[in-house]
Amino acid sequence: MSGTHGNTSNAKSRRSAAVPGTTPLRALDAQQLDVLRGVGREWRRVSAGPDVWRRALPVDPDLGALPTPAQITPARFGRVVPVAPFGPTVLGTSQPRPAPARPAEEGPPATVDRPRGLYRVRRLLLGPALASTAIARERMRKLVALPVLSADALSSVAYGPEAMLAVLVLAGTAGIGYSIPIAATIVFLMLAIGLSYRQTIRAYPHGGGSYIVASDNLGRVPGLVAAAGLMTDYILTVAVSIAAGVAAITSALPSLAASSVLIGVAAIAVLLACNLRGIRQAGAIFAAPTYAFVIAMVALVAVGLADAGGRGFDPVPHPPVNATEGLGILLVMRAFASGATAMTGIEAISNAVPAFKPVEWRNARTTLTWMIGLLVTLFSGIIALVHFDGILPRSGETVLSQLAHSNYGSGPIYVYTQAATAAVLLLAANTAFNDFPRVLSLLARDDHAPRLFARMGDRLAFSNGIILLSVAAGLVYVAFDGRTASLIPLYAVGVFLAFSLSQAGMVVHWWRLRDRHWRKSLVFNATGGVLSAIVLITAGITKFTEGAWVALVAVALFLFATTRIRRHYDTVAAALRLQLHAIEIPRRTIAPRVPAPAEGVEGSPDLPGSADSSHPSHPSESADSTDGREVRDPEAFRAAGDEAGDEAGKSEETEEVPEEVRHLSLVPIETLDRAGMRALAYAASLEQPVLVVHVSTGVREAETFREHWRLWGDHLPLQELVSPYRAVIAPLVNYIEALHHQRPDLTLTVILPEVVMRQRRYSALHGRTAPRLRRALRPLRKIVVTSVPFHV
Amino acid sequence: MSGTHGNTSNAKSRRSAAVPGTTPLRALDAQQLDVLRGVGREWRRVSAGPDVWRRALPVDPDLGALPTPAQITPARFGRVVPVAPFGPTVLGTSQPRPAPARPAEEGPPATVDRPRGLYRVRRLLLGPALASTAIARERMRKLVALPVLSADALSSVAYGPEAMLAVLVLAGTAGIGYSIPIAATIVFLMLAIGLSYRQTIRAYPHGGGSYIVASDNLGRVPGLVAAAGLMTDYILTVAVSIAAGVAAITSALPSLAASSVLIGVAAIAVLLACNLRGIRQAGAIFAAPTYAFVIAMVALVAVGLADAGGRGFDPVPHPPVNATEGLGILLVMRAFASGATAMTGIEAISNAVPAFKPVEWRNARTTLTWMIGLLVTLFSGIIALVHFDGILPRSGETVLSQLAHSNYGSGPIYVYTQAATAAVLLLAANTAFNDFPRVLSLLARDDHAPRLFARMGDRLAFSNGIILLSVAAGLVYVAFDGRTASLIPLYAVGVFLAFSLSQAGMVVHWWRLRDRHWRKSLVFNATGGVLSAIVLITAGITKFTEGAWVALVAVALFLFATTRIRRHYDTVAAALRLQLHAIEIPRRTIAPRVPAPAEGVEGSPDLPGSADSSHPSHPSESADSTDGREVRDPEAFRAAGDEAGDEAGKSEETEEVPEEVRHLSLVPIETLDRAGMRALAYAASLEQPVLVVHVSTGVREAETFREHWRLWGDHLPLQELVSPYRAVIAPLVNYIEALHHQRPDLTLTVILPEVVMRQRRYSALHGRTAPRLRRALRPLRKIVVTSVPFHV
Repeated sequence: MSGTHGNTSNAKSRRSAAVPGTTPLRALDAQQLDVLRGVGREWRRVSAGPDVWRRALPVDPDLGALPTPAQITPARFGRVVPVAPFGPTVLGTSQPRPAPARPAEEGPPATVDRPRGLYRVRRLLLGPALASTAIARERMRKLVALPVLSADALSSVAYGPEAMLAVLVLAGTAGIGYSIPIAATIVFLMLAIGLSYRQTIRAYPHGGGSYIVASDNLGRVPGLVAAAGLMTDYILTVAVSIAAGVAAITSALPSLAASSVLIGVAAIAVLLACNLRGIRQAGAIFAAPTYAFVIAMVALVAVGLADAGGRGFDPVPHPPVNATEGLGILLVMRAFASGATAMTGIEAISNAVPAFKPVEWRNARTTLTWMIGLLVTLFSGIIALVHFDGILPRSGETVLSQLAHSNYGSGPIYVYTQAATAAVLLLAANTAFNDFPRVLSLLARDDHAPRLFARMGDRLAFSNGIILLSVAAGLVYVAFDGRTASLIPLYAVGVFLAFSLSQAGMVVHWWRLRDRHWRKSLVFNATGGVLSAIVLITAGITKFTEGAWVALVAVALFLFATTRIRRHYDTVAAALRLQLHAIEIPRRTIAPRVPAPAEGVEGSPDLPGSADSSHPSHPSESADSTDGREVRDPEAFRAAGDEAGDEAGKSEETEEVPEEVRHLSLVPIETLDRAGMRALAYAASLEQPVLVVHVSTGVREAETFREHWRLWGDHLPLQELVSPYRAVIAPLVNYIEALHHQRPDLTLTVILPEVVMRQRRYSALHGRTAPRLRRALRPLRKIVVTSVPFHV
Repeated sequence: MSGTHGNTSNAKSRRSAAVPGTTPLRALDAQQLDVLRGVGREWRRVSAGPDVWRRALPVDPDLGALPTPAQITPARFGRVVPVAPFGPTVLGTSQPRPAPARPAEEGPPATVDRPRGLYRVRRLLLGPALASTAIARERMRKLVALPVLSADALSSVAYGPEAMLAVLVLAGTAGIGYSIPIAATIVFLMLAIGLSYRQTIRAYPHGGGSYIVASDNLGRVPGLVAAAGLMTDYILTVAVSIAAGVAAITSALPSLAASSVLIGVAAIAVLLACNLRGIRQAGAIFAAPTYAFVIAMVALVAVGLADAGGRGFDPVPHPPVNATEGLGILLVMRAFASGATAMTGIEAISNAVPAFKPVEWRNARTTLTWMIGLLVTLFSGIIALVHFDGILPRSGETVLSQLAHSNYGSGPIYVYTQAATAAVLLLAANTAFNDFPRVLSLLARDDHAPRLFARMGDRLAFSNGIILLSVAAGLVYVAFDGRTASLIPLYAVGVFLAFSLSQAGMVVHWWRLRDRHWRKSLVFNATGGVLSAIVLITAGITKFTEGAWVALVAVALFLFATTRIRRHYDTVAAALRLQLHAIEIPRRTIAPRVPAPAEGVEGSPDLPGSADSSHPSHPSESADSTDGREVRDPEAFRAAGDEAGDEAGKSEETEEVPEEVRHLSLVPIETLDRAGMRALAYAASLEQPVLVVHVSTGVREAETFREHWRLWGDHLPLQELVSPYRAVIAPLVNYIEALHHQRPDLTLTVILPEVVMRQRRYSALHGRTAPRLRRALRPLRKIVVTSVPFHV
């Protein structure tokens, strides 16, 4: 493992250069850059100069009107790269640009209808595609950030106290007596971990999720373990929040109790649909439920305590309960571990520091303090109220509902309380829909998860991760019959695993950094870490048979899968690294052969009469070779095509004699790795005019690629396409179609580099760009598709 | 329709040239041959001579040891074309031939393991592949042919009489009285139609199925209607025979009655499995059930009549029945139509005339006479016995079982009778498994059904047709709950539709032919035809609401589907017809470019130094150009490859500089149509060495293809492969692998002509050769796959 690890550039540099939601072009390391330069030198010895190849091009690669990257305004409607439109096949470009006159007899290829139909259905369901630049970058005020980021944590009080009581009640009245001291311990824990995360916010102003903190400070495996904890946490957040939310509803409407599982599944489906459309967690809609819930809870606690005060704080005796288990240390610990689930979601603010208005870390810390204050208030208030009102957990009605009933009766205030509870729980579940795919995309970007999780869909959501979360949460929810009590034992393990590793990472961080306040911060983080670890161990031991083993197995499987995936990607990356073999004696110069212009073609560009004429030795790279291309009128190409096409029947596929075939090879290339280089070599060796096409998902990626390309030597004509909607296939197909319309007499050979896995089980880990492109090109006329495989 | 009809050569010529169970290479019509010659002339003007292309080949296409077609003994075990073995990748060739020494470091490609695993499972389930020459051609003696061919007809007496009685019983005792006159009418019908088919046998000594007779004499649409009747007939034969067979079993073992549908479905599954293995209808195993049944029935009738004779032929009064319907002409006609199902299968012998020993038609006629005699005897015997024994149809026990019970009690003779009945019914169902796929393959060969039904699997069975029949019969059986009585109304329509059209066709035949006995034959056939038509109309009217409408709808749908399919194939065939466009001024000569031999390569064949040197004008076709190739030592190629491969890393995919790529283009071609010619033109226009490969399923097909090839002008090197097991993909892949092993340094570009349907719904009608080949080639090193599409 360690041997191949060095081959791939480090995680940080990968992350930084990326357009959000794309698999970025990996920067090459120094050794690879050297090899690239070396390969370029070999090319120079055998290939005719770039100018020769460029002059041989029978088409205008710019299509006469390709916009520069700066010109591409992020249009809200429309998906394809805005290449020069050539009829209705360009799906709704928003920029009105003068369309070149198009011969009427060339109707749009009938086959384009099918994808358009599917495309329409998709747009109807998901809304129009969003450009990468449309990513929400708005900063949140503290009063907005508080409800948005604390929904998960605050909503936990809807099930945490109940989970604790449900364990204690097993030991009868004596057990219930322990609720106050255990709750006090949990409050202490909340404060300690809150303090702990205040340190994290200061140290990671760019967002310090457990995965990042643990892998930065403790190494790869602890980082993965933290991620495993996080992922199970998010899945269970959805399942538990939905279960508790449905319980809040069925408490108010007992007639719905029978179909509670169905309601929960429907709620997950709604969350899935909304998140595929790309709902962002911002704005008043998301602030409302949390504030409503806080108001409801504060009111409940105030009314209840006032009531109790009226009785002289004399607790109502709870109904007698029979002890079914002895009161032992194990039971108390179990109750503690269950009650600690009230703390889940406490880490949310430290992940989202960059979303605050400046000074970010200071605002985040203030918000965290507020949140901890609210959390402690609500938690201890509810515990106190339960104590004074003599409430016991029972099936069919939640503790919160019982409290509301006993204080308000069944009037509108009760209904409001239940509705607010359900709403905040739904919002908490939605938080996981934001976080799970994000963590998964970080893993994917570090090669620990299949790359498809790193790609954003055209609605700027990590669609694949969202789907995975929905399926996983749905399965867990259904498997445990939608009962909160059954899900709680699984929950604590993942959460506190991530907490512990994150805090441990922070301890290492402070030890290494030793800045001004390092001692204080280290102590706080160490305390938080130790306490989290205690909860983790407690939960793992006391609830092992109740379900914690499921979470532990899930973490182990996750760890196994992610390391295997990383190893596979490393192997592939190593196999694709360029290597240098010198050619001893170049036999002859590889140059494009261009047919002599047919008599009668006038106004055709200055194509060289014969490429077999000996070329001057390769000029050294000069500004001229990259930028000095003469601007040519695309209509000239069209004219040449029309003229030449007269005898070959234009885009009719009638070439039955070799003389009638006029070639242009197109090489769509992703990176200059061995597979790509092999395709380039194959294309050049055919000695037909070659045009290399690269689709970038952003201007920076385009720059990186062009840098590599120049380093290699710019031996072949290159056309860069920038796809503002992250799609690769659609812009390529549109570009190829545009070329075809420019010169319908040409046979375009699309030469696809294709990495073929020897073991088919790994093929899911790799993009299916080549087969997808082949399928998209299949219905087009006079497009020959060639796969150049590279076997790994 | 009529416009495109003329484009495809007529059905007869297609049929004659074919190896059984293959889609034959279609012979080109005179106009196409002319065009082919013309296209060849155009090639001659632009292409360097065949010798130049042949000398440019960097490999030995014969692999040094390709056997001539005559040498290919039809090995029973082994599937691939016996090319020179080059290691364990050749799947079990049976011929021990000295394997050329193979460098140890070249292990077999690991990827070949997967198909081998699947291949093994398939061989385990289905048995070894069978060569085309292994088709059973044995002639049957009359005493063998009788039971084999009459199982379907004779077994019909197991349900025909009962079906008739089941209708009559509705009219009470009065109705039952009509059984004797109706039975007499049916016996008359049997004799008339028997006589009718005697004429058919004389006229069609090569087998005169209804489809062939009707389409030959009445035209395409009546032929298709007859085929529709036949197909529904065969589906219902399976369903009805299985239903009746299961009834015979459950009559003896009433405890099984509850699971009768399950038993029937299991029986269909067993038939499916056996027929996929390729059971032929011949031999003693198939004779036994029929003889056993005949003996059982004759004994039953004899014992019963003797008994009745002992009582002075005084009928036992049957239990009183209440009339639920009035006795009218409609009821009598319904009973007649139901009873007429006892005649199904009567046409079997006339279909199978060539299976008899010479003089075939005379033996077939004798056998038909015997069969009619037996059928009449059994049918009338059973009707008489029912009359004398006072038996009435009732649910839970068949009439035959009641007869056997009343004559034998429940002893071993009863069990034997029931077992023989069930066995003959199973055999009758099996007959349909032979006939349905055969008719479907005839339809497919005439472009009326998807071509995949014309292909025999590697067990020489029409696997796709067998699967279709099983599914259809299974669905019908389950839909009608496995009850014989419900299925009968559907049955008669299809059978008598085919009968009527077949007889009508024979009338036209005699009228046209007017040979010695034509008047007599015409009268017989006309009588049979009119009687069949009467039954058809009777059945269609009286049973319309009972289920006959299902059969009529099925026939209509079939007719619609087959004509649409034919129209589609005609459109495609028209689009693929070669067309001629003259090239005005050839710009230059298309010739393969061959790299200058590397220094130090000795013993390499006389490759031309540079293909860019001007070639002599094309020599006219001479014996020299087709047969005069010098015999070269394949080891020389291997040596050249090794030498050349030293710098390029042999079969490593390391060519990252165009100079390192050494090309050989392979064009696997099926026919010289427009799509194929386009691929050839594309391949030649790349001006790399080209080798064309054609896989024939038989020597005759190979000859036809070579004839076309020579007519075209033999412009490129051609390698013929003969595949004795009808597979196309496996021999091609093996051959390509062998070439790769001969010269691992070459990059082999496989240029696939691919016909792409504009409408995807039609793609099921076309072979998936190109995608399948692409998938098979994907794991192989240094094989580049190029698809040259042709859009229809």
